[in-house]
Formats: sequence, structure tokens, C-alpha cells
Amino acid sequence: MLPRVADHLESWRDGDARRSIEGFVQGAATQGDGFIEPADRIAVFDNDGTLWVEQPLPVQLDFIFRALTQAAQAESSLAEKDPYKAILAQDPDFFAAVSQQQPDAIRALEEALARTWLGKTPEEFEEQVAAYFREVKSEHFGKPYPELVYKPMLELFEFLAANDFRVFVCSGGGRDFMRVIAEPAWNIPREHVIGSAPTYSYEDGVIKRGDQVLGGLALGSGKPEHIFAAAGRLPAFAGGNADVDIEMLESAAFAMLVVHDDADREFAYTKAAEKSVAAAKDQGWTLVSVKDDWKTVF
Amino acid sequence: MLPRVADHLESWRDGDARRSIEGFVQGAATQGDGFIEPADRIAVFDNDGTLWVEQPLPVQLDFIFRALTQAAQAESSLAEKDPYKAILAQDPDFFAAVSQQQPDAIRALEEALARTWLGKTPEEFEEQVAAYFREVKSEHFGKPYPELVYKPMLELFEFLAANDFRVFVCSGGGRDFMRVIAEPAWNIPREHVIGSAPTYSYEDGVIKRGDQVLGGLALGSGKPEHIFAAAGRLPAFAGGNADVDIEMLESAAFAMLVVHDDADREFAYTKAAEKSVAAAKDQGWTLVSVKDDWKTVF
Repeated sequence: MLPRVADHLESWRDGDARRSIEGFVQGAATQGDGFIEPADRIAVFDNDGTLWVEQPLPVQLDFIFRALTQAAQAESSLAEKDPYKAILAQDPDFFAAVSQQQPDAIRALEEALARTWLGKTPEEFEEQVAAYFREVKSEHFGKPYPELVYKPMLELFEFLAANDFRVFVCSGGGRDFMRVIAEPAWNIPREHVIGSAPTYSYEDGVIKRGDQVLGGLALGSGKPEHIFAAAGRLPAFAGGNADVDIEMLESAAFAMLVVHDDADREFAYTKAAEKSVAAAKDQGWTLVSVKDDWKTVF
Repeated sequence: MLPRVADHLESWRDGDARRSIEGFVQGAATQGDGFIEPADRIAVFDNDGTLWVEQPLPVQLDFIFRALTQAAQAESSLAEKDPYKAILAQDPDFFAAVSQQQPDAIRALEEALARTWLGKTPEEFEEQVAAYFREVKSEHFGKPYPELVYKPMLELFEFLAANDFRVFVCSGGGRDFMRVIAEPAWNIPREHVIGSAPTYSYEDGVIKRGDQVLGGLALGSGKPEHIFAAAGRLPAFAGGNADVDIEMLESAAFAMLVVHDDADREFAYTKAAEKSVAAAKDQGWTLVSVKDDWKTVF
């Protein structure tokens, strides 16, 4: 079988990144040295900063902070306690602690999340997420977040699918938050979305949210663990953009790292990605520059 | 779009069961009252007794008991302790306690399982399972178990796929045990296999088996819980054969229950399925008689 024509990556400039991706993907689908059995053609991508903007705050954190703000406004006793107090005060130390995953901050946040959504059905949660996506706009871009998915990545999804890869998303963010947009925004089925998730219990015909995290957060080594649990194999192709993606990227046969270096069209930042850039150079991963490798960003 | 022709169910006799299945599946794929959005077309099946024989013992229990017997033979101190002692003695009380899921028996078994496979890589475990499938034959049929998958059910998988259902298996048995045969025997991808599973940890580029059960056993209410976690929705179509499938069946829009009533071609038994037959009559599930509804069993 001849390799399929790479007509999918039209938002990618011709360059090392595009050529290296095309080479690997078409090689996987062609008898020869780089061939990969169709069953093993699993591609996995991080979400925040890899599929859509994550500045100034990862989208789901913005969603959560808004929900916790509403909860504190509705129940004034909460407003005196962290994380509600810190969120209402927009305390930069707290935001920094969360983004650095400091245990105390994460624990306080997890407890608040459990309190907010414990016992809720998926339909109730999904309606809340859907309303957020309809109503809230990024201040920077003036657009709802589902419109801030990177077009070159959606083209890459299609290119991979055309070469019989099954495309998954594995994010440290909430699995059930992402599943709301998986089909409309990414055109991938919900069952291909892996991420941090609460337990659920089934009773009297209804699934309801529990207060534990199922199998740990999908960050760092948690990413390959969640991917293996969901897919039964480690990925052939992986894409990420941050230090918490390193283990996922090193578990794949081919890895690409998005580098945010385009202050004009998006954002330029290296924070929480320094180690991953070093790992990419060390391990020969493909670096994808937003500025140089993408003709179109959105 | 016209409904696709049901040329897939050739091992099924014309009768109520086949007609009810065809009616639901083709209705789901046709604009009208029974239409189901393609994204929601999830079909889920139990494994033991639904997809292959489970007598005299569920296949995976046979695999486990052989492995524990070998462990006890290799390490004589184990032979004095349960469950090793009971397995070596072929103690019917122990087997009954396991099949009735008595907590003490299950705990002893889980501890022995963890001891046997703790720290093993997926490749090591899979090779052991593959050897079992190559070498061990059912005493009753004189054939390896992968040849004892019910042909009508494989046809049903194809029929569902032809109508744009995604077919999953959800079994109380081990997820990773089933994944070894998912692609060769069922023609469904590993990521569509849901079941009871250990934790895994990722370290130094390798996934290794832990000693905890991830998210509980996929039995009873654990089935819809595992299905929701994996697929992001409850099933449109579900098939089972036992009391531990009741919650999964009631969570689906359409449910079918396999009834083992064919002592000549397979086995005739009702044990551990009495409540599910009652539930089927009560809730209008489709009963599938091995004797009457299947022209061919294997």
C-alpha cells in the first residue's frame, strides 16, 4: 500500500517539524523499517497548551475557580476558608501553589471540588460545563475557549486517523470536563479521552459522582499509567508541551513538544516547560514552534 | 439512509430474540422513533458465559488456579496456606466461596494474585496468558478456549459495528487477561476491553503491576461504574448472562440475556443467573436461548 498523501497538514509550514511528523506517521503506515502494526497505532496528546491555549490560566482552572466563587457567594461561611478565600481574593500565591502542584494547595482544591460536585450526575456536571463553554470568553482573545483549539493540531488528528492511528487525549485536567468538547471540538469519541477523574457510584439506575480521585492524577508518571489502563498499550505517537508530559513523551516511539514562542499570535512562555525542552533535545523529540511551524494558529 | 441489511446473524435462528435484536439495532441506525445518535451507540458485553463457555469454571479462574498451583509447587511454604492449600486440594468449598464472591475467599485470592504478579510487566503477564491459550484445552471440548467463543456473538459484534455501534466488553474477569484475545478472537481493540484490573506504576520507562485493584471489581454495580469511566456514557445495548450483569443490563436502553439451556451442545445451568432471568422477564429484556436461538454455537 502506498503511503497516504499528506494533504491534511495545511496549517503547518514546510520545515523540520512537519517533515519529521509526516515521516514517522507515513512510515508507520508503510511496510518497511518504520512500520507499526495497526493495532499498536495509538497517538496520545496532552490538552492544555498542546491542543488549546492555557494562558493566563488553564481553562479548567478558570471553570473551577468560577464555580467555587459562586459556591462561596451562595454560602458565606465558605468565603472565610481556603481555597475559597484565596480564590475570592485572587491570591497570586495560591494560584502559583496550584500550578506548581503543591500538596496542600492541591488537597484544599480537591476537597472543594468534591464538596461542589459530590453526588452530582454526569448530566448535571456536563450541563454546567457546556454553559461555561457557551457563555465564557477568553479575555485575551474575546472568544469562547472551544474556538481556541489549535487548528494545526486538529489537522494532525485527521492526518493520524487517515493513517489508521487511534487518537487519544490524556490530560492532567478533568476527564469529564474534556469529554464535553471531545466530539464537537476534536472529533474524537469520549472513550478516547483520558484524564484525572473522580470515582462514580451506580445506584438505582443512576451514576453519581464520588469524592475520590480514580487512579491518581494524570500528570507525570500518572500519564503513562492512565494511558496503559485505558488503551492497554503505551503510545506510538505522543504530543505534549510541559514538564508534566515528560513521562508520556518518553513512553512513546515518537514524541513532539509544542514550544510556545509566539507572543503575537498566542503567548510566549517557557515556565513549567524548561525540563521538557531539555528532554526533547536530549532524546531527539520533535520540537514544534508555534511561531515558526504553524502558518495558522486557530 | 436505509437500514443496513442484517446479513450478519446467520448463526441465529429466525425467532423473537433475533428479531428483537435486529429491530433495536437497525432502529438505532435509522431516522425515526428508535434512532440513537451515532456517538451514543455503545454496546457492551459480559465475557464469561456471554462470549464463551464458563463451565465447569470461568476460564480465567482456571488460569489463575494453575498459576497458583505452580507457585505453591515452586515454593513449598505456600502450599500450607490458603488459597494455595485449597486449590491444591481442589477444595469444593473454596471454589464455591470464590464463585459466590465471599469476602474472605476473594481477599485471599486477591492477595495471592498480587503476590504472583506484583512488579511484572504487561509483556511478562501477556506471554503467560498467551501460552495458556495456546497450550491448555477445555477438558469438556478438547479445544483451546479461544476456539470456544460463541459464533453467534461474534456475528452480533459485526452486525453492531456495521450499524456504527462501538462494541466493548466489560467483565468481572481480568481486563489484561481479556485484552490478550480481544484483537485476535473478538476483532475489537484492546481499549474497548473493560474489566477488573490492578493498578500499574510507571517508572524508568516501564509499566509494572501494582497490588491494588483499580476502581473496584467490575461486577454488579461495578459494571456501569467501569463502563462510564471508560466510555463516558452508559450503554445503548448490553448483553450478559448472570446476576452480576443485572446492573449493566438495566443501565442500557436494550438488554439481552443469554440463557444456558443446551446440555447437548454446551451446558445447561441456571446457577448464579436466577435473579437475572427474573429481572429480564420483569424489565422486558430479550432472552436468548442457546438451544433455541442459535443454529451454531461455535
